Amino acid sequence: MTGPVTIIPIGGVPEIRPGDDLAAILADRIDAQGLEPVPGDVLVVTHKVVSKAEGRIRAAPDDAAYRAAVEDEASAVLRRRGDLTIAVTRHGFICANAGVDRSNTDDGSVVLLPVDPDRSAHRLRMILRRRLGTDLAVVVTDTFGRPWRRGLVDVAIGISGLPAVVDLRGTVDGNGRTLEVTEIAVVDEIAAAADLVMGKAARVPAAVVRGVDLRGEGRATDLVRPASEDLFR
Amino acid sequence: MTGPVTIIPIGGVPEIRPGDDLAAILADRIDAQGLEPVPGDVLVVTHKVVSKAEGRIRAAPDDAAYRAAVEDEASAVLRRRGDLTIAVTRHGFICANAGVDRSNTDDGSVVLLPVDPDRSAHRLRMILRRRLGTDLAVVVTDTFGRPWRRGLVDVAIGISGLPAVVDLRGTVDGNGRTLEVTEIAVVDEIAAAADLVMGKAARVPAAVVRGVDLRGEGRATDLVRPASEDLFR
Repeated sequence: MTGPVTIIPIGGVPEIRPGDDLAAILADRIDAQGLEPVPGDVLVVTHKVVSKAEGRIRAAPDDAAYRAAVEDEASAVLRRRGDLTIAVTRHGFICANAGVDRSNTDDGSVVLLPVDPDRSAHRLRMILRRRLGTDLAVVVTDTFGRPWRRGLVDVAIGISGLPAVVDLRGTVDGNGRTLEVTEIAVVDEIAAAADLVMGKAARVPAAVVRGVDLRGEGRATDLVRPASEDLFR
Repeated sequence: MTGPVTIIPIGGVPEIRPGDDLAAILADRIDAQGLEPVPGDVLVVTHKVVSKAEGRIRAAPDDAAYRAAVEDEASAVLRRRGDLTIAVTRHGFICANAGVDRSNTDDGSVVLLPVDPDRSAHRLRMILRRRLGTDLAVVVTDTFGRPWRRGLVDVAIGISGLPAVVDLRGTVDGNGRTLEVTEIAVVDEIAAAADLVMGKAARVPAAVVRGVDLRGEGRATDLVRPASEDLFR
């Protein structure tokens, strides 16, 4: 990781509907932009289009129906305040409203998280590899709040083709001193980087991150800190 | 934010010592790499070199001295487990060991956070502007853990020349629906993106992030969520 890293927005993606072949649509846009994927590239895609293509949409015409959707998606609730519920999802992620999203949906429906975002990422990767002839890693993202810090950041909720965490334990720093524990959540950093071009309002639900060049077979659920090790649950 | 974003490592930076003119050293490296800064570029720099240049180093030859440094830097302690202290720094940031860092230091000393990282960022920006003739935004970073998610990510602890948070409230999403609350912690995303090239072991304590093109006069302390609004303190 010493050369430049480039983050290329994948734009012009049409509204995604249940049953759409998202991989084919993204491959078309990658071709249309003249972007020739190279091994080591990472395709980052917001879960919203993944969930929509997978039919993870639910009618929720009013606040009560929305709250019911949140309860159904949550495996546990950590905190409630007003309309906000901080919940554990079935995947183990902790986020607002169990990932149930009212924005960017047709009126009266909400978007749920994919049932298995790691599997979604893997499936996208396999189809893209056949179609593009290049093995891109895939990162599926969501936008999470954080305790203690204002503002949202994009994080990885599903990955394929790269490790979730890069473990620098035992490597040597610039002074020849052995680093003790430095596990970098590199897929979260990739997700955050991609959000710099993906934005919210434009039709840019994906980006290619070029230059990171990590290979591996991690899972985003590797990022879930076990409750027994967590000081803030 | 619709074009590509490029993250360019600034390498070959020598070991920084108290009193060094860090801005001049970074400007030299930017020149040496033939990197012509353009307005809108963001210089991201790890606080470690900022703190070293500012003399924020403290002798801590043993564990007791290290613990004393942590206590001195903390304004409050949220949790303790074994050697780990999750503390509030005097700036209001919440992180492990109040930001006192044993890695990347000469044996027997630790690196503290800058006294006022926003001011450090502003000072770097002013000197670089005179020297390079271009007004770069500056982001000073540290590497933080997070509750609930394994792995560390870089975040912003000092900024100058751009907003901490981009507030999309009231903007319209792709369906013409007004977004309710979408405050993106864009400087944390920039910090995370830069870490993809900065790494831990190489002499790459800085990067230029090109293509984000945000202007403003935010402060990293804007990212501190007031304790009264925080559900996890």
